[in-house]
Amino acid sequence: MRDVSVIGIGQTKVGEHWATTLRHLAWEAVRSALADGGVERVEAVYVGNMLASALSRQQHLGALIADFVGMRGVEAMTVEAADASGGAALRQALLAVQSGAVDLALVLGVEKMTDMVGSATASARAAAADADYEAVHGITAAAIGALLMRRYMHENGVALADLAGFSVNAHANGVGNPYAMYRRPLKASSFVGAPLVADPVNLFDSAPTGDGAAAVVLCPADRAPDLVPHPVRVAASALVTDAPALHDRKDPLFVAAVNSACGRAYEAAGIGPGEIDLLELHDSFTVFAALQLEAAGFAPRGQGWTLAENGDITRTGRIPISTCGGLKARGDVGGATGVYQAVEVVQQLRRQAGDCQVPDPHWGMTLNVGGSGGTAVVHIMEAIQ
Amino acid sequence: MRDVSVIGIGQTKVGEHWATTLRHLAWEAVRSALADGGVERVEAVYVGNMLASALSRQQHLGALIADFVGMRGVEAMTVEAADASGGAALRQALLAVQSGAVDLALVLGVEKMTDMVGSATASARAAAADADYEAVHGITAAAIGALLMRRYMHENGVALADLAGFSVNAHANGVGNPYAMYRRPLKASSFVGAPLVADPVNLFDSAPTGDGAAAVVLCPADRAPDLVPHPVRVAASALVTDAPALHDRKDPLFVAAVNSACGRAYEAAGIGPGEIDLLELHDSFTVFAALQLEAAGFAPRGQGWTLAENGDITRTGRIPISTCGGLKARGDVGGATGVYQAVEVVQQLRRQAGDCQVPDPHWGMTLNVGGSGGTAVVHIMEAIQ
Repeated sequence: MRDVSVIGIGQTKVGEHWATTLRHLAWEAVRSALADGGVERVEAVYVGNMLASALSRQQHLGALIADFVGMRGVEAMTVEAADASGGAALRQALLAVQSGAVDLALVLGVEKMTDMVGSATASARAAAADADYEAVHGITAAAIGALLMRRYMHENGVALADLAGFSVNAHANGVGNPYAMYRRPLKASSFVGAPLVADPVNLFDSAPTGDGAAAVVLCPADRAPDLVPHPVRVAASALVTDAPALHDRKDPLFVAAVNSACGRAYEAAGIGPGEIDLLELHDSFTVFAALQLEAAGFAPRGQGWTLAENGDITRTGRIPISTCGGLKARGDVGGATGVYQAVEVVQQLRRQAGDCQVPDPHWGMTLNVGGSGGTAVVHIMEAIQ
Repeated sequence: MRDVSVIGIGQTKVGEHWATTLRHLAWEAVRSALADGGVERVEAVYVGNMLASALSRQQHLGALIADFVGMRGVEAMTVEAADASGGAALRQALLAVQSGAVDLALVLGVEKMTDMVGSATASARAAAADADYEAVHGITAAAIGALLMRRYMHENGVALADLAGFSVNAHANGVGNPYAMYRRPLKASSFVGAPLVADPVNLFDSAPTGDGAAAVVLCPADRAPDLVPHPVRVAASALVTDAPALHDRKDPLFVAAVNSACGRAYEAAGIGPGEIDLLELHDSFTVFAALQLEAAGFAPRGQGWTLAENGDITRTGRIPISTCGGLKARGDVGGATGVYQAVEVVQQLRRQAGDCQVPDPHWGMTLNVGGSGGTAVVHIMEAIQ
């Protein structure tokens, strides 16, 4: 199996891009990733997308986008695993290069979510849950977040204010990211009094929905140094599933898929959570950040929230998370999320994260979660000096 | 890159399965493929599906189905390339095994299309076309088929009756296939007078839409003989795209993606079209069969229809197609089609196709096409005696 590096990255600003079509968003991210990687064309394109069928009545994005970005005829397809689609697409591209069948691969995460009004989007996103046993009853992603958050607070004696640090950190980091949807700081005092979305989840627990596209270019590691000055090595990749329905899992407060995917990735990279210098996790709701930190081995069970309390998750803390704003401030881009995370980790490992830069990182990790934990995709990347 | 074999196959009867859910259909195909391959579990599941988002409000099928079929926790995701989703999923599974990351992989094609009334299904399927330039004007798959057929007849001086042989052959073959949606023969005389669907496409030019699931199990070729008596080697795999919109292609009557994918596959397998003993192509409309035979190198430009006229496509002819009924008689199962084709070719190469058996085949080929030619996926399989 060949070693693989990331040689190019590109992204659009996340936001409400009403005047820009899905394919134009894709074009913007793809062209900058190709330019960044010093290549004009790739052999295969893997698109991470969840919602184009429901919200844009468009499928067949592989062919559509390959053609529109000027690469008519290349291999191209969509990979879908709900909100973890981007991470899953990255994993498929990686396997294609590892297999030797493809030398240059492009991974694109793209999502156009704000053209439809709220309930249509909420309903489309609920297709990440179990349609026959969860979504049919009208449950939304926010409602599932609320069930988990209520139970987490009850089991662990956590108050709403104890979770504020996650959103405060994400917004503090987002200020420095020119691609973030919201670039304003958030005070812990505002967090507690925010309007409720689904009790106890409030507005500042919830990531905003945004349109956006991000792209990365992969190639065999031995070719990377000839193409770019700062290739980043993909040291490990793992994708693990669990039941999409919350009630089907043995323990809803233990994200088993995250735990298992992280375990496999640590083993493949030959490191443990102690070595990770930054983590882009899936903080679509504050409680998700706490649960993922626990399942990924950064905090004991029930103690993930303390990392937000004591500053461990800030850019200079023990395990920086959401370093470019995370889903909370950069914006929740649905199936494109995993590719944004990869772009952000590569920026950090290249020391190109500007005002978001974490001091001297060597290992960076992405954790992309589908639904409430039905899919977890982990990638560990290593800076090559 | 490791050599890969198919060791297990399974399928459900294609039809209007109103009393069976998507996950139950999947379960039926997966359990028979695992039993056939002599394994209880795989490491990764690749689901080919196009329409679950639009018609069942369900995404995240990888996690959902892996859990439901008793493989909670394995790697799983959906691969989508419109009607070529099944073939694209097979290709991704193949790359995963070739890379060495996965030893046992399962490919599932599943589609549930008949729960919704006609226009909802037609509209959902139109998402294979270009939403902004084709589908927005109300065009359907049948209408695109009609445009191509009208032009084909005009350019080549072909009458409706000249295309009858494709449907007559498919239905003759479907009689012998217990999994086919329609098991009744069709007379050439009935073909010509059939009610119009979209002039000149009539009812007997069009494949019927059906629910169904099919599955194959892959493993490294060197392990296959220990597991099953008749492994089938995957000799070549290729996926090529083109513009999804018909008006964007240089020549609508030349399916460039099919031509290029077949060329790559022939080269990889080290054979030419003359060696292929049977071909499962994407005959959702009769004119598609003619166009694909030409692009795949079995007939000169404009002459594909003659193979139906002179009997070349029958089970004992020069290049047998639709040997188990094809889309026309087995049923058009949308994104599951490519996996049904793989199952049918493996049955033939194992000499297990019963009344559908082609005499003594060594090389079999699948050709799975997305939309009107935006994606083409080709697999060449070889019998191992």
